Amino acid sequence: MMRSHPAGTLRAENVGATVTLAGWVARRRDHGGVVFIDLRDASGVVQVVFRLGDVAEESHRLRSEFCVQITGVVEQRPAGSENSELATGAVEVSATALTVLSESAPLPFQLDEHGDVGEDARFRYRYLDLRREGPASAIRLRSRANKIARDVLTDRDFVEIETPTLTRSTPEGARDFLVPARLKPGSWYALPQSPQLFKQLLMVSGLERYFQIARCYRDEDFRADRQPEFTQLDIEASFVDQDDVIALGEAVVAALWSELGGYEIPTPIPRIPYLEAMARYGSDKPDLRFELELVELTEYFADTPFRVFQAPYVGAVVMPGGASQPRRTLDGWQDWAKQRGAKGLAYVLVGEDGTLTGPVAKNISEAEREGLAKAAGASPGDCIFFGAGTPAEGRALLGATRGEIARRLDLIPPGSWSFVWVVDAPLFEAAGSTDDVAVGSGQWTAVHHAFTSPNPDWIDSFEDDPEHALAYAYDLVCNGNEIGGGSIRIHRKDVQQRVFSLMGLTPEQQEEKFGFLLDAFAYGPPPHGGIAFGWDRICALLAGVDSIREVIAFPKTGGGYDPLTAAPAPITALQRKEAGVDAAPPKAQQKPDTQPAAPVKPQERPVQ
Amino acid sequence: MMRSHPAGTLRAENVGATVTLAGWVARRRDHGGVVFIDLRDASGVVQVVFRLGDVAEESHRLRSEFCVQITGVVEQRPAGSENSELATGAVEVSATALTVLSESAPLPFQLDEHGDVGEDARFRYRYLDLRREGPASAIRLRSRANKIARDVLTDRDFVEIETPTLTRSTPEGARDFLVPARLKPGSWYALPQSPQLFKQLLMVSGLERYFQIARCYRDEDFRADRQPEFTQLDIEASFVDQDDVIALGEAVVAALWSELGGYEIPTPIPRIPYLEAMARYGSDKPDLRFELELVELTEYFADTPFRVFQAPYVGAVVMPGGASQPRRTLDGWQDWAKQRGAKGLAYVLVGEDGTLTGPVAKNISEAEREGLAKAAGASPGDCIFFGAGTPAEGRALLGATRGEIARRLDLIPPGSWSFVWVVDAPLFEAAGSTDDVAVGSGQWTAVHHAFTSPNPDWIDSFEDDPEHALAYAYDLVCNGNEIGGGSIRIHRKDVQQRVFSLMGLTPEQQEEKFGFLLDAFAYGPPPHGGIAFGWDRICALLAGVDSIREVIAFPKTGGGYDPLTAAPAPITALQRKEAGVDAAPPKAQQKPDTQPAAPVKPQERPVQ
Repeated sequence: MMRSHPAGTLRAENVGATVTLAGWVARRRDHGGVVFIDLRDASGVVQVVFRLGDVAEESHRLRSEFCVQITGVVEQRPAGSENSELATGAVEVSATALTVLSESAPLPFQLDEHGDVGEDARFRYRYLDLRREGPASAIRLRSRANKIARDVLTDRDFVEIETPTLTRSTPEGARDFLVPARLKPGSWYALPQSPQLFKQLLMVSGLERYFQIARCYRDEDFRADRQPEFTQLDIEASFVDQDDVIALGEAVVAALWSELGGYEIPTPIPRIPYLEAMARYGSDKPDLRFELELVELTEYFADTPFRVFQAPYVGAVVMPGGASQPRRTLDGWQDWAKQRGAKGLAYVLVGEDGTLTGPVAKNISEAEREGLAKAAGASPGDCIFFGAGTPAEGRALLGATRGEIARRLDLIPPGSWSFVWVVDAPLFEAAGSTDDVAVGSGQWTAVHHAFTSPNPDWIDSFEDDPEHALAYAYDLVCNGNEIGGGSIRIHRKDVQQRVFSLMGLTPEQQEEKFGFLLDAFAYGPPPHGGIAFGWDRICALLAGVDSIREVIAFPKTGGGYDPLTAAPAPITALQRKEAGVDAAPPKAQQKPDTQPAAPVKPQERPVQ
Repeated sequence: MMRSHPAGTLRAENVGATVTLAGWVARRRDHGGVVFIDLRDASGVVQVVFRLGDVAEESHRLRSEFCVQITGVVEQRPAGSENSELATGAVEVSATALTVLSESAPLPFQLDEHGDVGEDARFRYRYLDLRREGPASAIRLRSRANKIARDVLTDRDFVEIETPTLTRSTPEGARDFLVPARLKPGSWYALPQSPQLFKQLLMVSGLERYFQIARCYRDEDFRADRQPEFTQLDIEASFVDQDDVIALGEAVVAALWSELGGYEIPTPIPRIPYLEAMARYGSDKPDLRFELELVELTEYFADTPFRVFQAPYVGAVVMPGGASQPRRTLDGWQDWAKQRGAKGLAYVLVGEDGTLTGPVAKNISEAEREGLAKAAGASPGDCIFFGAGTPAEGRALLGATRGEIARRLDLIPPGSWSFVWVVDAPLFEAAGSTDDVAVGSGQWTAVHHAFTSPNPDWIDSFEDDPEHALAYAYDLVCNGNEIGGGSIRIHRKDVQQRVFSLMGLTPEQQEEKFGFLLDAFAYGPPPHGGIAFGWDRICALLAGVDSIREVIAFPKTGGGYDPLTAAPAPITALQRKEAGVDAAPPKAQQKPDTQPAAPVKPQERPVQ
């Protein structure tokens, strides 16, 4: 090692010792005869002073971020010049030798200021950005999170297993990234959207308990804070029911928050049915750090003369004290709602004397005005916001309004945490109601994914009423973020085939896309289920940062662009030719022929 | 949980307890009135007996690999029917209830026999193959290996960091797998051959100690026991020299072999210079479990009349007792050599009376015959095999012959281990002398990779004599397998540019391919180095299996084909269109424009 001590570990008890340090010049003060530098390495910072002849002479050439090796003697700082904010602030190192290991060009941005620097610059020069304490500590926290989660799981006999990433498409709601197969021109691998099918096959294998911190790939259009490659903590177990997986999930997050967040999550974490979450909070990932709830007023406005409220759903959310908002602010709410795709945001102001004002108040009936404050749960001085339309539209708008009210009124206690399981979600939703890529071409598509089991009440009858059939699924929500989701899976071949059929996959398509899974289910598959945690998001929450990009060493910006390496990039004609990009695919309906799986027929005398 | 106890944990002290088990029917003996099954789960096997009315009736339908849940009472086995080979052999479970969780079709192969089943069938039905004890235990061992290695590294303050896999090409001797970027049509990502450049950037970032169990991708032509995706334990550290990395590497393998192999590796592990390894063992990954060494006879045959030995290199290896091999066997050696691409394998037999026989003996001079046995180190009764040609050719043939002799003579003690570091390898080799994909178009290419530092003796002068310049590199060899390799890296921009230039990269090409690395080296890069362990191979060695396929959950067979999912596969026209495979690339020489990195100019007043 080029050092005897990490710089940040020096203390008063080292006084008198000769030490060799290696690190970077974080700060430099040249007082003519004497030069001071803050020497930074991974362990922290110590002050180095150059006082003596030659070495002081040399030190004048030091500049920010030069990489240096310094030998010197640890000395007590002169009385009055201690720095109590620095762990090493009682001492300094009086240099006797200096080696410049490498020089630094002028920096594109200062490393001791954070807020000023744009993300583009930070990520283009990520190797400088990560020399700052904040960005580096987020990356270090992630490493600790990995260890904590793995320890919870290995303590419970889970086996860490790597699954393939050059594989067949595992459709789960997004497009696949594709990889041409040079050795089988015209054929392509897909990068997995998750290890879903492989972990289910591992359950068929009898390994019983699997986990992996797994890289996953989704070729999605730009959405805020998404990455084309992301990481999940992926878990699956056999012979479990929903309560088992939920208890395991709670053990994982409890350990993480206890060790890294300084917070003991009260367990069991409460559960809320999906429909109740939508009704009360207008969201399937409700933020329960504050209490505002939606009030449904559909019945209340059943006979309303107001056209806008003649809708399948009318609901409201109350902004306490909101009646005093100036007109300008109320107009601002309209703009806010329009930016979210709504037509506007209807409201009523409740005067201190109980009279209602605002445009909506004029349009509703006398009787409706009379009881509205009570029905909506509003008090004098409050503002009532309305959402009307389909239940999905109305609730989505009110759910967002609820969050915006909380932000504007500062209703979220800093540092607070709320966890909730959302359970009993619908199994299917109408195809076309989301921008997910549907697996089949049917009228219905899976809310979670096609491998989620109907719950026991619906397993024999989900086709009769797909809209209301419930899944055996559970999502973990933290502070309004979905941080994990899972389900008990289908393990019966007939049920899987029925789900595929409802989603519009013909038997031929089922065989072509999922034949290997259906085959596996022919050989004594165990009941099984699991969960996947959004590892980037969990680490971001624990690190107290807003974006998952902060907990990714080399993140991509919008559109999947890497500002550091400038990937993706054009390829050469030779690369294109060699990769077989333009080769004709092998003949359809024909098994790939250069590497056939040997036809394996069941033994003539079945092994029974 | 669907069970109260893991089946394999039941013991005499459980007698009398009512238990619920879940697992698979491993074996079944139907004695008419009474049915016995071996119930297997991840913990092991226990015997279940069905004696009572209804449950016995139901049990007749059980077949191999049905997945079942059984409730019953633990009973002492009748005296004399204990099975001491089974951990649960003192007890059996008398079933009172049986639930068939799923049935199994007749199996494609028996699960209790291993040798008979072909690899194609095993990997096509990997979910059945992994129900066997051997294959499953190899996968479980790998999980434990991960934990052991990570513990060694986190104990030493190494930080686990994920690096990108959708990235720019990182040329390291193979072709890249390519991924079309739908959001930037005409541009492509590459899957990384290793995290090499990213881990070096992490060192520039000041994180100082990095590790990752990393998935890597190399699009290579078929070679035995290679996978297109493979895993390495990847490590990098700053302010280290070769001894530091070697000591760390020894700590990792010592922990692995101690805990998983039951073997304490004597440390420090011996080191051998590359040239010495080639000279003595004919290999850069010598198997030191046996002692046979090559003897160089170039000088000895300097004036030989034998045409074949008029070569730049003549060497020999002695097969003890080999003179008694029948003619047929000696002919077999010729075939063996020809299969390896040699013309044949010259030999001389040393008779018990010291006379030499065989075709070569006739062709060499009297004087050469006279002293040959002594020069080659042969005794009466031995066979001397010869290699002649270039040193590389001759040594490669003799190195292989050495290994083949050891196999035929059973010279390798079962269960023995040998570890050795091969150091001081050449920095460059002639381009075209390997089938690696060269990074540049020059006469020389890197033996390790283009980022390996010349050693201190050569750093200022490697251009003067590229053939003999030595790298600051080290490979760890175990039982003749290279299980790890690393180097001190170049961290000086000028040295990196000189290496690129020698390899035939123009300044423009250097900037286009590696500009981001050269840029990073402008900002105070620390000296750094690291190592990568071939994780698949290490796990295979520890598991005692021949092929890395055994320690991969879902391996690919030759040509990168996955016999289970039949990947790779043709894609649809729509997928092709959407992925932008056929889009024209963005204009050359132009920075990608949809996601520009904001032009960041150095601050006008440099931060110094």
